[in-house]
Amino acid sequence: MIILGIDPGLERIGYGVIRREGSKLTPIAYGLIQTPRISVPDRVRLIHEQVLEIIDLHHPDSIATERLLFTVNKTTAMDVAKALGVILLASSLRGLPWAEYSPPEVKQSVVGNGNADKKQVQFMVQRILGLEKPPKPDDVADALAIAITHAFRSRIVIPA
Amino acid sequence: MIILGIDPGLERIGYGVIRREGSKLTPIAYGLIQTPRISVPDRVRLIHEQVLEIIDLHHPDSIATERLLFTVNKTTAMDVAKALGVILLASSLRGLPWAEYSPPEVKQSVVGNGNADKKQVQFMVQRILGLEKPPKPDDVADALAIAITHAFRSRIVIPA
Repeated sequence: MIILGIDPGLERIGYGVIRREGSKLTPIAYGLIQTPRISVPDRVRLIHEQVLEIIDLHHPDSIATERLLFTVNKTTAMDVAKALGVILLASSLRGLPWAEYSPPEVKQSVVGNGNADKKQVQFMVQRILGLEKPPKPDDVADALAIAITHAFRSRIVIPA
Repeated sequence: MIILGIDPGLERIGYGVIRREGSKLTPIAYGLIQTPRISVPDRVRLIHEQVLEIIDLHHPDSIATERLLFTVNKTTAMDVAKALGVILLASSLRGLPWAEYSPPEVKQSVVGNGNADKKQVQFMVQRILGLEKPPKPDDVADALAIAITHAFRSRIVIPA
């Protein structure tokens, strides 16, 4: 099973594609989509097109995104939600099931501590996926952590 | 000039298409897009496809939407923003310039009072567009009011 994890945003979108075989997780591709300072409609279009490209290149079986929480900046939260809208549209167009996880759920799954800091998440993502160095920037580490969370949580347990 | 006004939402999206010739505004089409209780990705897909259909049918020169404000329900606001994302994607795909207006700006433009109530907005929309009866439901009246606001505010003044 191939999972696409996405940390949504309007300016910076982290993505990570991983493969799950049994209990083994391996990285396939990860990186950052960045949009220039253009209008919001043109930004969401770029995001939509690049997410479709990633899906068409790696053929994930499902998509997982970070659940949006209200934090400091409400305007930012609304912009992130606009970007998430076009990411979800891409997943619907390609028929992918969608799951979302809150930041504490992701930290709990990956680090075992819902209050873990960014460094711990990076460290555990590196370890779980056998990467040579910690994934950077944070958006990319978070996207991989979301994909790992989905891999752990969606595992089908076949009774003995 | 043809203007598409949209009152965004995830469950109910009001739209209104009007034509401006000189100082005269005439209605072309208006109505409500409603989405059933399906997943959010499938809902935004329906919204995206129906907005594209409206654009391709009526060929507006520009699109105007209601600026999202934080009101009572934060979850609702985030869902509306997801829907707005795919509406803006449609406008970018068809090369339409986009404007947004806050509810007080719309009320000020249409009724002359930024605190006007829904009934006053409906009454003035009916009057300005020469409709036989007040446009209903509120989502549709609001969409037409947004289009009217854009028609008033974007008017190019040609010096004598």
